[in-house]
Amino acid sequence: MDNPKRLRDYHISIGEMPPGAENSITDLEGVTVGHATLDDADCQTGVTAIIPHQGNLFREKLIASSHIVNGFGKTMGTIQLNELGLLETPIILTNTLSVGTAADCCIEYMLNQAPEIGRTTGTINPVVGECNDMLLNDIRAQSVQRKHVFQALENAQKQVAEGSVGAGRGMLCYSLKGGIGTSSRKITLSYGTYTLGVLVLTNFGILRDLTIQGRPLGKELKEKLLQNTEEKDKGSVMVIVGTDLPVSERQLNRILKRSITGLSRTGSIVTHGSGEIILGFSTANKIPHEPNEPVSSQLIPEQDLDDAFRAVGEATEEAVLNSLLTASSVTGRDGNNRPALKDLLREFKVRLSL
Amino acid sequence: MDNPKRLRDYHISIGEMPPGAENSITDLEGVTVGHATLDDADCQTGVTAIIPHQGNLFREKLIASSHIVNGFGKTMGTIQLNELGLLETPIILTNTLSVGTAADCCIEYMLNQAPEIGRTTGTINPVVGECNDMLLNDIRAQSVQRKHVFQALENAQKQVAEGSVGAGRGMLCYSLKGGIGTSSRKITLSYGTYTLGVLVLTNFGILRDLTIQGRPLGKELKEKLLQNTEEKDKGSVMVIVGTDLPVSERQLNRILKRSITGLSRTGSIVTHGSGEIILGFSTANKIPHEPNEPVSSQLIPEQDLDDAFRAVGEATEEAVLNSLLTASSVTGRDGNNRPALKDLLREFKVRLSL
Amino acid sequence: MDNPKRLRDYHISIGEMPPGAENSITDLEGVTVGHATLDDADCQTGVTAIIPHQGNLFREKLIASSHIVNGFGKTMGTIQLNELGLLETPIILTNTLSVGTAADCCIEYMLNQAPEIGRTTGTINPVVGECNDMLLNDIRAQSVQRKHVFQALENAQKQVAEGSVGAGRGMLCYSLKGGIGTSSRKITLSYGTYTLGVLVLTNFGILRDLTIQGRPLGKELKEKLLQNTEEKDKGSVMVIVGTDLPVSERQLNRILKRSITGLSRTGSIVTHGSGEIILGFSTANKIPHEPNEPVSSQLIPEQDLDDAFRAVGEATEEAVLNSLLTASSVTGRDGNNRPALKDLLREFKVRLSL
Amino acid sequence: MDNPKRLRDYHISIGEMPPGAENSITDLEGVTVGHATLDDADCQTGVTAIIPHQGNLFREKLIASSHIVNGFGKTMGTIQLNELGLLETPIILTNTLSVGTAADCCIEYMLNQAPEIGRTTGTINPVVGECNDMLLNDIRAQSVQRKHVFQALENAQKQVAEGSVGAGRGMLCYSLKGGIGTSSRKITLSYGTYTLGVLVLTNFGILRDLTIQGRPLGKELKEKLLQNTEEKDKGSVMVIVGTDLPVSERQLNRILKRSITGLSRTGSIVTHGSGEIILGFSTANKIPHEPNEPVSSQLIPEQDLDDAFRAVGEATEEAVLNSLLTASSVTGRDGNNRPALKDLLREFKVRLSL
Repeated sequence: MDNPKRLRDYHISIGEMPPGAENSITDLEGVTVGHATLDDADCQTGVTAIIPHQGNLFREKLIASSHIVNGFGKTMGTIQLNELGLLETPIILTNTLSVGTAADCCIEYMLNQAPEIGRTTGTINPVVGECNDMLLNDIRAQSVQRKHVFQALENAQKQVAEGSVGAGRGMLCYSLKGGIGTSSRKITLSYGTYTLGVLVLTNFGILRDLTIQGRPLGKELKEKLLQNTEEKDKGSVMVIVGTDLPVSERQLNRILKRSITGLSRTGSIVTHGSGEIILGFSTANKIPHEPNEPVSSQLIPEQDLDDAFRAVGEATEEAVLNSLLTASSVTGRDGNNRPALKDLLREFKVRLSL
Repeated sequence: MDNPKRLRDYHISIGEMPPGAENSITDLEGVTVGHATLDDADCQTGVTAIIPHQGNLFREKLIASSHIVNGFGKTMGTIQLNELGLLETPIILTNTLSVGTAADCCIEYMLNQAPEIGRTTGTINPVVGECNDMLLNDIRAQSVQRKHVFQALENAQKQVAEGSVGAGRGMLCYSLKGGIGTSSRKITLSYGTYTLGVLVLTNFGILRDLTIQGRPLGKELKEKLLQNTEEKDKGSVMVIVGTDLPVSERQLNRILKRSITGLSRTGSIVTHGSGEIILGFSTANKIPHEPNEPVSSQLIPEQDLDDAFRAVGEATEEAVLNSLLTASSVTGRDGNNRPALKDLLREFKVRLSL
Repeated sequence: MDNPKRLRDYHISIGEMPPGAENSITDLEGVTVGHATLDDADCQTGVTAIIPHQGNLFREKLIASSHIVNGFGKTMGTIQLNELGLLETPIILTNTLSVGTAADCCIEYMLNQAPEIGRTTGTINPVVGECNDMLLNDIRAQSVQRKHVFQALENAQKQVAEGSVGAGRGMLCYSLKGGIGTSSRKITLSYGTYTLGVLVLTNFGILRDLTIQGRPLGKELKEKLLQNTEEKDKGSVMVIVGTDLPVSERQLNRILKRSITGLSRTGSIVTHGSGEIILGFSTANKIPHEPNEPVSSQLIPEQDLDDAFRAVGEATEEAVLNSLLTASSVTGRDGNNRPALKDLLREFKVRLSL
Repeated sequence: MDNPKRLRDYHISIGEMPPGAENSITDLEGVTVGHATLDDADCQTGVTAIIPHQGNLFREKLIASSHIVNGFGKTMGTIQLNELGLLETPIILTNTLSVGTAADCCIEYMLNQAPEIGRTTGTINPVVGECNDMLLNDIRAQSVQRKHVFQALENAQKQVAEGSVGAGRGMLCYSLKGGIGTSSRKITLSYGTYTLGVLVLTNFGILRDLTIQGRPLGKELKEKLLQNTEEKDKGSVMVIVGTDLPVSERQLNRILKRSITGLSRTGSIVTHGSGEIILGFSTANKIPHEPNEPVSSQLIPEQDLDDAFRAVGEATEEAVLNSLLTASSVTGRDGNNRPALKDLLREFKVRLSL
């Protein structure tokens, strides 16, 4: 597959902060992302794995938090993640009815890394997010198998494929084809330069609300399409936020809460049926499993969070638009189809940058 | 004071849903709003009271909820409001250091209405919100006195003055003069027509982020002003949402959470220093104080909330812009001044509608 | 298996409220409970299913809520349950590393009941709770298979086996053998008589803290045992609360929060490693899936909750003690063993009732 | 006033951990407590101030958290305290309708300490808790004046008067006279010895539930009293927890949540009308106001929290019992009276220790 054009390839940039080298969540040192894509007739789904660092995740945990904007979703693992403020596994994304399988495999993956789990120490808390891809995928078939989850974990790399891949294979966004998108921002503070990256799994919104940098593109397209492409929004969006800022879980949670500003600026009204769930981690401190003595951790001054607040909004907005622009059209269950934004732009000769 | 022009007087409307008759929170039957404005040299502050219905608020409570976007604020009364899902007093808005005085008066106001309080039944839960007007107002003077709070309560009426009045007297918004704004939306469902109204006390944001209907007006103005009007955002915004939709406190809370979509579209990144607190009530059901038997309440179908979600975003966005456009310039403490947006538009010959 | 003696068979009753006919969560009309028990050398684990009503759970949902006392746990399904205030599946309990398998099967069970899921309507939210049985069970083997989950669902009946059965097979409580316990209370209000039932999966506490009706039985036993039976508490307790009181999800949540009073009175200090998670439902109102018009629901007067608060504390306390008294000794992984309280009472000639 | 006998003077001790030197929250270095007591016919109320360290509280803030068990209460200041995890004022306790006055004075007290507030930096977040003393006190009179609040602040000292003093003057507990109580525990970890102290303002419970070390003392007294001393519980309990353990706000919150285990063991069922609110702080780290660079903070290993969990339960239980035993009988509004437990013990010749 050619690399599809991303938002900045159309000469549009979101916000005022500079992106990282690849404008990707993997601009964070140690973060990798892998996909397994199922593309076979009625089966249009997949798995995406985000590995937050390359060491032993159980023995070196990361400060983490989650934020629920709309809890119409089945994300697993947030109870313990919030209680302890720690992430100790990869984050797996898949379709709604495959969360169980993904959790099982995430557990097995960690059991292999840490033979002490369930023997000399406690258990493991898998973190799995999901969106509902039932329009394009026969979700009732629960097609995702164990091998697909392990494949996504093994495929993890710095280069992040976007669009109709991995867990994004069957997803919709603003009534068009959605899926995986990513973006990042550099944050310069007086005591150092940091990165904040976002990866989204987009499956939300209705066409007429789509807005790009203030432009009501969705309304324009809807008029040209001369057809009703709008259904009830039964989607969701998963937002994964990583940063190397030295923040506490409380500070990280404050950052996650601002992700909604970016979602809102793409046009979202956060409908009832669209679970919006944000998961985040900081790679700045590795927290040992059951340390023997107090651990020291650094916290940035609270007022410096403003840069992270701006960054997470900008990166979320751009990641959503990247997911839309990079997605390719998919025909799936019962011949259902969702068009790709890039194809519509070409077909209707709409220029994205004015 | 002449009625200053509101957003729709500039031929701009936000969103797609129709506003109520007055495009005001008082489009809700029974809701009134009153102001007391202190305007004397270094003292530029005030009080705004929202009375949610005209009966006995203690004996006929309203379903209510609150949502904290950013808890850097001193709003009082939300613990009990959330525990019981009920509002039993007016909502008072004032400056940050006058919350105590406002609470005292809110209590006295209710003691007068219900002699049984503290005698044959329990106490009363005053609800008071605030923003920090320290730039234009000598906030350390704690100038708001008891008489001002009662004056705001007594002034309550259907006609809502906007801009640099009441609690909004000393407030800033996007580095310009902010204050009070309001807007409403009509919601048409198969079983009835409803209203959702929003009143905001705006005191947040920095100029370059100000966006009107996707247009980066703040950046345009900042270039023209040729000066640095940006300071750290130490503000806040209070959003009061009323509706006559028959919703439970859980459903109402879901509505309140979507207010942020409107704030975001005006440009907010929800900075650290800006407490964003949403309070809401439904006038659909009056809940008696300590009923003797089960009470019956109606809940709209969950999926119909989508219209309320759209409405609250639109009305919040428009109320913020109304607060900016109606505010008049104020010079206060130590000669500090904040310009009015309407004056800048005139001075720089900027047309708001393209 | 003979029916083991329960607390009341020792002439001890907890609290002042009368239990239901069977002193069981199944005293609630429509509620059934089923177990699948795995008992084979190192494999000592199982599954317990609580079916909250006998109709179609997806099409007739129940008001529900959850409360996290200590979030060191992997319970799945609470995000959506809390957002919508609804339960739409059975509740499955199992060991910590089998939550994925249990979720998969819970989904399949519901897909079979409702062919519209994932076709003409959205997806399903499985609710699965867990405790860690790693001492007696080779938890790393992930022995629970699909057939076991379905077996627990199929076994569901009014008669609830307690002790070392189902998900309770490998669990510990106060350093002794724990497992499944249940109890109920009748609530008489002026407008009707109601039932509140509790089922617990106990896996928490250390011996010296065990208290029965104020008596420090744990300390007494510890002295007699002349050995260190205390390990770090790495357990958990799941508490399932059902009632036919007509309560809202907010009121139900208030009830769930009081469950801890009963846990505390058995001696719990709620250790770090012991996830304490409470799930509850009311059978009073059946809520249709996506109704077309407002639904009416009844709420009991808030002050009448006091009886439910007392009931849930009493029933939780008694259910925990029932789980301890009915459990039989189990020898499992690597020959690890936990004694049964009933055996210790006999061995040391300790009379439970004074 | 003679020093009334405390629980340990009756040869009863709660739990297994040793108390601090004075068995008081002031065993924590830097913590002082002051009272102002109003005792005049129908006016039986007061103010209690807890000063968490003796430096400048605004410039050197403390890690803090709050936990709501039952939100039927009007405590002020928790929104910002939780958002930032910081306490920057004394904690003031008073009657429910005097929260406004207390807040005003708490603000003024801090304005005097920090002239930069509201000038070169932002505002201040006063923290005020309350209980409802309407039976013994004419609460509608709002008798607490500014001078009383300042008096409590000025009276702050290491020696803590207990019982019917300060905010506890008009409070009830288990239908008897309640008020102020305190207790502490020493925590010995491998890397140091720490203290955790609790101060309670008790105003909850009904007589027949009162339990001391497992003994149903309330039932015994009720039989002897031959009268109905039970009214609806319209009370509350405020629990203030201080520690010098180096904990994060998340860890501190976990500690606060365990306070309920101690309340439960005194017999509480946490009734509807009884707001149970826990506020806590750690004196281990002083956090500067708006630091210029990252601050480093120490966190104890999560599993070591178990000792703090046990300590907070024990100290809360003992503080409640101290409040009951030290309280003297008060006759107040309309001649209403509540007997003192110590007097009943004497009158009925009930020995507290068996």
